[in-house]
Amino acid sequence: MEQTNELAHRMGLKTIKLVDAAGNPVAGKEVVVKQTNHQFLFGCGIFDVIDVANKNVPADRLAFQEEKLNLFLDVFNQATLPFYWALFEPEKGKPRTKEVMAAAQWLKERNISVKGHPLCWHTLTAPWLLEMSNDEILKAQFERIERDVTDFKGLIDTWDVINEVVIMPIFDKYDNGITRISQDLGRVGIIKEMFSKTREFNPNATLLLNDFNTSINYEILIDGCLNAGISIDAIGIQSHQHQGYWGQEKLEEVLDRFSHFGLPIHFTENTLTSGHLMPAEIVDLNDYQIPEWPSTPEFEERQAKEVEEMYSILFKHPLVEAITTWSFSDDGAWLGAPAGFVRRDNSPKPAYDVLKKLIKGDWSTEVTATTDGDGRLSVEGFLGEYDLICGDKKVNFRIDKDGDTTAQLEV
Amino acid sequence: MEQTNELAHRMGLKTIKLVDAAGNPVAGKEVVVKQTNHQFLFGCGIFDVIDVANKNVPADRLAFQEEKLNLFLDVFNQATLPFYWALFEPEKGKPRTKEVMAAAQWLKERNISVKGHPLCWHTLTAPWLLEMSNDEILKAQFERIERDVTDFKGLIDTWDVINEVVIMPIFDKYDNGITRISQDLGRVGIIKEMFSKTREFNPNATLLLNDFNTSINYEILIDGCLNAGISIDAIGIQSHQHQGYWGQEKLEEVLDRFSHFGLPIHFTENTLTSGHLMPAEIVDLNDYQIPEWPSTPEFEERQAKEVEEMYSILFKHPLVEAITTWSFSDDGAWLGAPAGFVRRDNSPKPAYDVLKKLIKGDWSTEVTATTDGDGRLSVEGFLGEYDLICGDKKVNFRIDKDGDTTAQLEV
Repeated sequence: MEQTNELAHRMGLKTIKLVDAAGNPVAGKEVVVKQTNHQFLFGCGIFDVIDVANKNVPADRLAFQEEKLNLFLDVFNQATLPFYWALFEPEKGKPRTKEVMAAAQWLKERNISVKGHPLCWHTLTAPWLLEMSNDEILKAQFERIERDVTDFKGLIDTWDVINEVVIMPIFDKYDNGITRISQDLGRVGIIKEMFSKTREFNPNATLLLNDFNTSINYEILIDGCLNAGISIDAIGIQSHQHQGYWGQEKLEEVLDRFSHFGLPIHFTENTLTSGHLMPAEIVDLNDYQIPEWPSTPEFEERQAKEVEEMYSILFKHPLVEAITTWSFSDDGAWLGAPAGFVRRDNSPKPAYDVLKKLIKGDWSTEVTATTDGDGRLSVEGFLGEYDLICGDKKVNFRIDKDGDTTAQLEV
Repeated sequence: MEQTNELAHRMGLKTIKLVDAAGNPVAGKEVVVKQTNHQFLFGCGIFDVIDVANKNVPADRLAFQEEKLNLFLDVFNQATLPFYWALFEPEKGKPRTKEVMAAAQWLKERNISVKGHPLCWHTLTAPWLLEMSNDEILKAQFERIERDVTDFKGLIDTWDVINEVVIMPIFDKYDNGITRISQDLGRVGIIKEMFSKTREFNPNATLLLNDFNTSINYEILIDGCLNAGISIDAIGIQSHQHQGYWGQEKLEEVLDRFSHFGLPIHFTENTLTSGHLMPAEIVDLNDYQIPEWPSTPEFEERQAKEVEEMYSILFKHPLVEAITTWSFSDDGAWLGAPAGFVRRDNSPKPAYDVLKKLIKGDWSTEVTATTDGDGRLSVEGFLGEYDLICGDKKVNFRIDKDGDTTAQLEV
């Protein structure tokens, strides 16, 4: 594999000793070792899971969504679930905990890592905060974090704690409770409070700061947070590219600037469309409202090339640990954009096939090997979970970067 | 005075009891109370003091500079002295301490508050840092702070600790030792180290962060610093307006944004020229090099209007405590710009007269009053130092915002 050197940080070595039930080495035996899951997180926003897990839509819609989820499960190992306060708790005191928890459970049963998005954001925040004083808003936000982080602990251990703080205190499209308290606390202040509260109720969770602003503003904000003692587990970078693919140069420039902190980087919200580009003069993407935004064969080819290049660059970068494409499907995609890997009718686009080939092929390990006289075999492979198949027996193991390099397996 | 309300924060009340040598009240006596100095700092960059205090220039040049300084002393109460490392210590271990100290002493004797500028900056830093490792550069920077802050303590108790940090780690015009260590430490990190070191050797000094960047970048940087526990005494804002006066709207917008921190604000480097404007497309002002930049009667009128408006807006703002115009004179002004209050021949421009009228007239207090039967009189006046003249006797007192509101003076 010529890629080995560039991807050495994604791989590990494991020496396995195969024994039988009596503990005797299984010598000279041909076995198949096959990766079943990646340590790297390949994710999507896939909110359909809520409908499917709760079966609360008409049968034909349910069947369609189940088909969509099967295509998702075939490639990805991470899902982002929505916790927009306005939608999660439209009426104060009546959160949609049960429905979202069923979705998280459904995903966990299928070995999908789940992230909650977001705990604190000025957009889509609870409208009923507007009737409160700022002290009451902060208290309500804390209680919201305590409740949801506690309720979902074990099912959701990764959170976008706070979203888009660069713009938060100067957001002026409409009045909202979160902008109000961010003006009181300041940017670093509100991040500190929200991280501290989230950490309190799930100490081992992976906590992200997330922003679409990739300028020096976000760098300085992160620098301030780290110097203020806020323990950010991963830097979340949005990359909605409705107005055109960043390209290798910008992508590497962004990676370079945000690598200085030495923290893991998650591409949390990636969009590469298979349609015409949104005009460059649009500043807030939400302002672009058109009746139809078609996916076309020509642009689907462009999308596939961009997906291949971008995912490859990110997978090569040692600090990137996750890439989440924001809309798995054009059906229900943000802004009606043809932003998915599959079309509105669930048919996979070229980008789906390209990415599946990378994730399940090029970047996945499957080898056939024969144990030596002591029952040993060594496997070098991409980090993650594995099955070892020996005749009609199957056992599993992991290859980690810093974990045990040896294991004894009984078949 | 119609301005009283708008300037109430600049004024105080003092009740004085006048007694004679035997302690008896001096009743029914007419006295003159006259402000001699402002608490507010009206300053200039006035590097000529070094030549004058050291008398190390030819006699005709010296006479010219003395004339210039007399014009300066007639209006201003604050001076900024240069500590650019490249000029202060061109050869390692041979600082110009003696010369600069003579200047600081000269100013102190004339009741001028002195600020040192700057202790750490990537521009005009010592070129010999380039031969060092980053650890050695940081050590040298610390030693420089320790030496200079200690040497000048009592003469200089206000420092621009670190200059232009927003751009510092990405400054790419030329390699320099300070950019190198700022990349290691990060922005907040280098500010933290420099403030901590300066504070260590002059705990009661007024320490400023200073930048020309007035965008959200600088706001986020300050927010980060404060949350990281860095005690910034005043926010320094540069306002070199070679490309045109900001105008009331931008000025108030900047004031508004930097007021959120509740910290004193110093306008540290103000420029309003009496010449043609520098073209807007110039990004780094240093790139504008022209053989001659004349001061013209038309533009001198414009400058006077702008100075009057800008100083008035800043003096009204409760958090602003200092305004320093960067070049007192066109002679020796940065970029050769006609940036001074006086022309190359020391003749005052209209801006000089306008500002003198504000500082020494409109914003200054002088009253004649008669003591009552108990020898008492009350003075409401602009904060600062005062003479009370009673016959051929003169005593002095202060009006402070939070100080004693009463005083007994012997005449």
